[in-house]
Amino acid sequence: MNPTACMILIGNEILSGRTQDKNLSWLSQALNGIGVSLRRAHIIPDDADIIINTVNDARTQYDYVFTTGGIGPTHDDITTACIAQAFGVKVERNAEAQRILEGYYTADMLNAARLKMADIPVGAELIENPVSAAPGYRLENVFVLAGVPSIMQGMFLHLKHMLKGGAPTESRQLVLLIGEGTIAAEIEAVQTQFPEVEIGVYPTMKEGRARTTVVARGTDAAMLDHVMQRCRAFATERQIEEIKTE
Amino acid sequence: MNPTACMILIGNEILSGRTQDKNLSWLSQALNGIGVSLRRAHIIPDDADIIINTVNDARTQYDYVFTTGGIGPTHDDITTACIAQAFGVKVERNAEAQRILEGYYTADMLNAARLKMADIPVGAELIENPVSAAPGYRLENVFVLAGVPSIMQGMFLHLKHMLKGGAPTESRQLVLLIGEGTIAAEIEAVQTQFPEVEIGVYPTMKEGRARTTVVARGTDAAMLDHVMQRCRAFATERQIEEIKTE
Repeated sequence: MNPTACMILIGNEILSGRTQDKNLSWLSQALNGIGVSLRRAHIIPDDADIIINTVNDARTQYDYVFTTGGIGPTHDDITTACIAQAFGVKVERNAEAQRILEGYYTADMLNAARLKMADIPVGAELIENPVSAAPGYRLENVFVLAGVPSIMQGMFLHLKHMLKGGAPTESRQLVLLIGEGTIAAEIEAVQTQFPEVEIGVYPTMKEGRARTTVVARGTDAAMLDHVMQRCRAFATERQIEEIKTE
Repeated sequence: MNPTACMILIGNEILSGRTQDKNLSWLSQALNGIGVSLRRAHIIPDDADIIINTVNDARTQYDYVFTTGGIGPTHDDITTACIAQAFGVKVERNAEAQRILEGYYTADMLNAARLKMADIPVGAELIENPVSAAPGYRLENVFVLAGVPSIMQGMFLHLKHMLKGGAPTESRQLVLLIGEGTIAAEIEAVQTQFPEVEIGVYPTMKEGRARTTVVARGTDAAMLDHVMQRCRAFATERQIEEIKTE
């Protein structure tokens, strides 16, 4: 079994429907690539109690926890205070983080609000932010990242070496011009034969016709190819058209 | 305080990064419009124990719970079995649901897999699916919906009358051509003066320049306008350019 991960997306703007999260799918795919399996995500508001409890539950249940959002300079950025409380440590001005901010901002720009971004829970290891300087950090198995996608992605590249992954998870897919219910029994038979492979079946409509995407995921590439072959075989036998996608 | 809601997004395809969820932002905005406040979302895998526990936690903590995904005809559709277990009731063939499926599918299409979609937890009230027939359902305060966005949206229109909302939540926003840290203190002062309004501050970059979007949310339209006015006033005073958005 690969190491597991949990994501905690912090921010009223996601729950209110204003902002469409893009971090989950990006991070999940990046983790797949290094053999870490994202098993759960929480989307929670800027509420201290909820943040603290969610972080404390997640860090005992999963190998890695990634938070996004709430580490900026404004009043609604409360993640750092909550992380410190979750771990029972203090927040202190971090000399290295301050030096980083001083190198990025001119003296007149580096006001009290921005300096707050150098206040880091005691014991945390900084994570470089190659986009806008203010660092993320790691405390034990919890990685505290920015919510802005480009910054989150930049930070991930700088924390990747801290993760011990397993076998990369790969996937194969097949799109068939048929409703999913018509082929449910055949796919279930393949799933039963290959329990190590996770087979998902997803319906879509295009030009008024039902399509089914069959997705096989797992860490054994040869087995995935075999599963796809089996699905193609019954599709051919039943004269179901395969849609070739780019 | 408006009634609260929790969303449970069920599906390996979201956690694997394959599918970008679009249901949360749509449902959240629809709920805002009728005065129900989405306070939390869980994204969980197709795992029976996790589904059961998450549903049972959520239904005691929030006024309404909405699940999406896992009610189709294939082997990975396990939501209904889990909902029944969470409530300690049986799943039974529902006569009305069967009649609906018989009206939609031709006899040769209505195989055992598709008929499974007429198996509904005992005591549930059906929710019409205007897109592809197979219904969702409500059990107490839990609404079980499809994962395909068009179907989920269609179902919502048919369940809306079952919800008792409060005052619709509105929002106002202002985009300023300035970094968020520069105006953090002024915005915090406005937030302190208007605690009933939720003010969020979101940074973006465009053409290499920092922008800040200030969002005010609440149920009192006049107060929201006043908060925006206060933010515009300090922006004008400090000669910060406002970006007019469409």
